[in-house]
Amino acid sequence: MNLLITGGAGFLGQQLIRALLARGELSVADNQRPRPIERITCFDQIEGALVDSRVRNIAGDISSAADLAAMVDTDTAAVIHLAAVVSGTAEANFDLGMRVNVDGTRALLEACRHAGSRPRVVFSSSLAVFGGDLPEVVDDSVAPTPQGSYGVQKLIGEWLVHDYTRKGFIDGRSVRIPTVVVRPGRPNGAASGFASNIIREPLAGREAVLPVPMSMKMWISSPRSAVANLLHAVSSEATAWGWNRALNLPGLTVSMGEALAALERVGGTAARAHVREQHDEAIIRLVRTWPDRFSTARAHAMGFVADADFESVVRAHLADHPAR
Amino acid sequence: MNLLITGGAGFLGQQLIRALLARGELSVADNQRPRPIERITCFDQIEGALVDSRVRNIAGDISSAADLAAMVDTDTAAVIHLAAVVSGTAEANFDLGMRVNVDGTRALLEACRHAGSRPRVVFSSSLAVFGGDLPEVVDDSVAPTPQGSYGVQKLIGEWLVHDYTRKGFIDGRSVRIPTVVVRPGRPNGAASGFASNIIREPLAGREAVLPVPMSMKMWISSPRSAVANLLHAVSSEATAWGWNRALNLPGLTVSMGEALAALERVGGTAARAHVREQHDEAIIRLVRTWPDRFSTARAHAMGFVADADFESVVRAHLADHPAR
Repeated sequence: MNLLITGGAGFLGQQLIRALLARGELSVADNQRPRPIERITCFDQIEGALVDSRVRNIAGDISSAADLAAMVDTDTAAVIHLAAVVSGTAEANFDLGMRVNVDGTRALLEACRHAGSRPRVVFSSSLAVFGGDLPEVVDDSVAPTPQGSYGVQKLIGEWLVHDYTRKGFIDGRSVRIPTVVVRPGRPNGAASGFASNIIREPLAGREAVLPVPMSMKMWISSPRSAVANLLHAVSSEATAWGWNRALNLPGLTVSMGEALAALERVGGTAARAHVREQHDEAIIRLVRTWPDRFSTARAHAMGFVADADFESVVRAHLADHPAR
Repeated sequence: MNLLITGGAGFLGQQLIRALLARGELSVADNQRPRPIERITCFDQIEGALVDSRVRNIAGDISSAADLAAMVDTDTAAVIHLAAVVSGTAEANFDLGMRVNVDGTRALLEACRHAGSRPRVVFSSSLAVFGGDLPEVVDDSVAPTPQGSYGVQKLIGEWLVHDYTRKGFIDGRSVRIPTVVVRPGRPNGAASGFASNIIREPLAGREAVLPVPMSMKMWISSPRSAVANLLHAVSSEATAWGWNRALNLPGLTVSMGEALAALERVGGTAARAHVREQHDEAIIRLVRTWPDRFSTARAHAMGFVADADFESVVRAHLADHPAR
């Protein structure tokens, strides 16, 4: 069985591919026992770094129909579509966001459709599809009303996944991933990146800036939970989804004050002292449009998982990235 | 002041242009008195038939960036975007629907953006953005959940209009038009076309088929009300809309039995006898996903109008098209 991971060279993609290799087998068709994973194509702007006989690292353009057609064939049993321009970048560069997030998703769905084998497709959507006048707790009945270009582009992707699924072109599922914290590596263009920076950088002995008030809450997921939920999304039966192929994933509500308290418990007062509060109105404005509290009953009933508490998220980061 | 009407050669476009010419002036900017309409560009696949010194009839491709860029410039104060592939055709020909309804709308919005003068844009959306598990009465809080390609494509257009407006590229408004009855002319590819056929054809002495049960209800608008509401959409102030630029228009709930009773009252038993019931499961399936009852409080508060009753809709059709 062959799998395609777009955006596979990113940190979440690399962690996902490692988890797939460790598992070695997967069921990606209804009423089918797990089958061995023979090949994982890691597709991204740059070649992925993972070296394994089962991994094929390919660099290409996600919005290129030709590049994608070469990635998907009748042996492609499932696709996990992580490639995206992140929130801050999509807001700053509207055309790039449309090209990658909308045209890229559509080109991928077209490649899957024309392969003719109706592959499973997991689309990484985002809590950013919600915004504006929201109830205090966003439950499964709340309608997406994005207030930023990133959220609009993700919502368009969700509806394309819905319609391609209804037409029988693919077996699609969109999962709205909470803000992933703690991201390893360098800060990226995500407006939410500070939530990772204020944990990762101080633990590595470096300074970090908190651009939002201490009281600001965010809806987050650890990388481990995000990967586990992506694997569950691709391996769950179509009947468990029904017609509604978009799902709010479980997460954790944490205020920045609580996050820094957990940092101090894990890294000590020295780590905590590395964080400086300096507000950035553009970031505050965008992040404020996102909901910070969900009730994810449907996801829980379907077997998706959440983190226990924020301190365990910080400790898992240290365990996974001891050198940093 | 110059206006652009896409899909202007269609029956609704022609009726709209006639109404604009009769009115002679329009306010399409906030806090501005009505200004004389100097030019109306009627853009469609075929040249429009209206001859008037103020009307420029242009044939072109709505999904062509070059064609659209030539239609929109800094003098274009407002655009009313009616061009679309209708519901039955969009379901039967997925690629054509995506090209016209999604790519065409996006190309038009891009042309408006690059004109640089932030024109008013009215996007003709549809009740077909709703579907699936709906409450008995769809009010302004119900989330769009389209169950057909036409509805998905219209919803994507709405969100593009939202984001282009939020970014300051245009001043956009999407109006979800009920099924327009009675359409003049020949039957088209709309799955809902029978609702017009069963009135128009018998009144002209011709046979018509009712492909759905007598009890099936539809949410309809007369052409006159649809035109009045499009004019109100383009001339209402931006502040009346707020951030939510998509609106359910007022309409009338009518069962096919009630429609035929009105036909008999207006056209007599001879007209009624021209209608034969012969079910078409594909049409029943698609039309059943659309809601048939709305509460349109927001639209009423904003000054949009509805028809009084179905008999007056039939009589207005006869008055507007006496030869047929």
